[in-house]
Amino acid sequence: MIILKLGGSIITDKSKEYCFQKQITDRLSQEIKRSDKKVIIVHGAGSFGHILAKKYNLNLGHRNNEQLRGFSLTHTMVQKLNTMVLDSLHENGINAVSISPHSVLKLDNHKPLKFNIDIFKDSIEKGFTPVTFGDVVLDKKLGFSICSGDLLVELFAEYFKPEKVVFILDEDGIYTTNPKIDKNAKLIKSTTLEELNKYTTLSDDYADVTGGMAGKIDTIKNISKLGFNTILLNGNKSDRLYKVLVGKDTICTFVHGGKK
Amino acid sequence: MIILKLGGSIITDKSKEYCFQKQITDRLSQEIKRSDKKVIIVHGAGSFGHILAKKYNLNLGHRNNEQLRGFSLTHTMVQKLNTMVLDSLHENGINAVSISPHSVLKLDNHKPLKFNIDIFKDSIEKGFTPVTFGDVVLDKKLGFSICSGDLLVELFAEYFKPEKVVFILDEDGIYTTNPKIDKNAKLIKSTTLEELNKYTTLSDDYADVTGGMAGKIDTIKNISKLGFNTILLNGNKSDRLYKVLVGKDTICTFVHGGKK
Repeated sequence: MIILKLGGSIITDKSKEYCFQKQITDRLSQEIKRSDKKVIIVHGAGSFGHILAKKYNLNLGHRNNEQLRGFSLTHTMVQKLNTMVLDSLHENGINAVSISPHSVLKLDNHKPLKFNIDIFKDSIEKGFTPVTFGDVVLDKKLGFSICSGDLLVELFAEYFKPEKVVFILDEDGIYTTNPKIDKNAKLIKSTTLEELNKYTTLSDDYADVTGGMAGKIDTIKNISKLGFNTILLNGNKSDRLYKVLVGKDTICTFVHGGKK
Repeated sequence: MIILKLGGSIITDKSKEYCFQKQITDRLSQEIKRSDKKVIIVHGAGSFGHILAKKYNLNLGHRNNEQLRGFSLTHTMVQKLNTMVLDSLHENGINAVSISPHSVLKLDNHKPLKFNIDIFKDSIEKGFTPVTFGDVVLDKKLGFSICSGDLLVELFAEYFKPEKVVFILDEDGIYTTNPKIDKNAKLIKSTTLEELNKYTTLSDDYADVTGGMAGKIDTIKNISKLGFNTILLNGNKSDRLYKVLVGKDTICTFVHGGKK
């Protein structure tokens, strides 16, 4: 089984509110279908979640009751995005079924407290492709907070012991420095946990500017420590996802799992 | 706390595929808001769920793999309807949060096997209005089956011990015979479990023709046995929901809870 993370920056236009990238998502759905691999899909919230979550400071937890409205609106907007992803998967012959994090996961100060993972296991056994997403969830200490898609990927990796974990980004993979601001940035084609530690210490800029990348590298380290391989690839380029799914060479970053 | 069931026949046009009745739902949302009552909302699937569920024979359980597609499509269509209901509630100032039955409930031969009701309890405590709906769910014996909104209402009544349970229909309440085919049908304004047994024995026609009514009467009997009052009212008529919520007289059927 393969865990697939469809980044929010690839399925939505992060610079525009509520803008779903249907064409790209459709092509990625086709590539998943064509690979004939069993996958579990986690998608980001992109511009359907982040803008509202930031406006209402949802990640700080429950501080005022106006945030209750923000939580409700954010969850519904992400559910709308999720429905669009589901439509794309269905149109391409994948029996995708949505499971909302809010319904199955409770955090405690941003850390998982209770996670009903059985529904994912049962859905896979029945022949479905489970789809979940970055969402707002209840949090014992904070009242509520944000559950990133990356946290879900980590939880799944630990439980399902996947063949590999694939992150679909709007870049070719991990670079030595931030490729959006540094022309000399070099794509890291193959790396290990040890090397990754070195790069991320060197490139704080990278981590800060791209926002999601700092947290993502922590997630990848955790997956790597569990012993699983992680691959990061550019979802804007045709066939890369397909090739990675079926084990063919393509442009990407391959992070070898294991503690060495 | 009041349990509210928004019937599929009132929030959708059951004769037309995927036709949401926005105007009616908006007015009902306003009436809920105006009442200032704590509610938990269950809505039917109406024409967003029943047509597909029937086409793929989902209630018979898993018999062939084409049904997996049917299950996926049905769940997504109901999720779309749910998003429309959420939008209507939000537009009217209610902090509604969706919890999908598929994520929290597993059946065994149509009967509840596992139900993670904590997420509903936690959401209410936090100040949200939980919204759930009739859905397709996994079923231990059958593979999958249908979880009606009425079953959810029963489960909530048992757990939350509500002030009352309110069913919003496209008729004024329960009639002595089927009002859609019998001009002499009389609205039952007030009744008990014992009397209800008498009426439903007399009016098999009624139960059969309206489809949902036979199951609904069983649900009402179960709620009544638990000791809670059930009120059935016409959602097409302004202010009836508001009046029932705040305890004022209006045209409806009042079923007194209790075993006598």
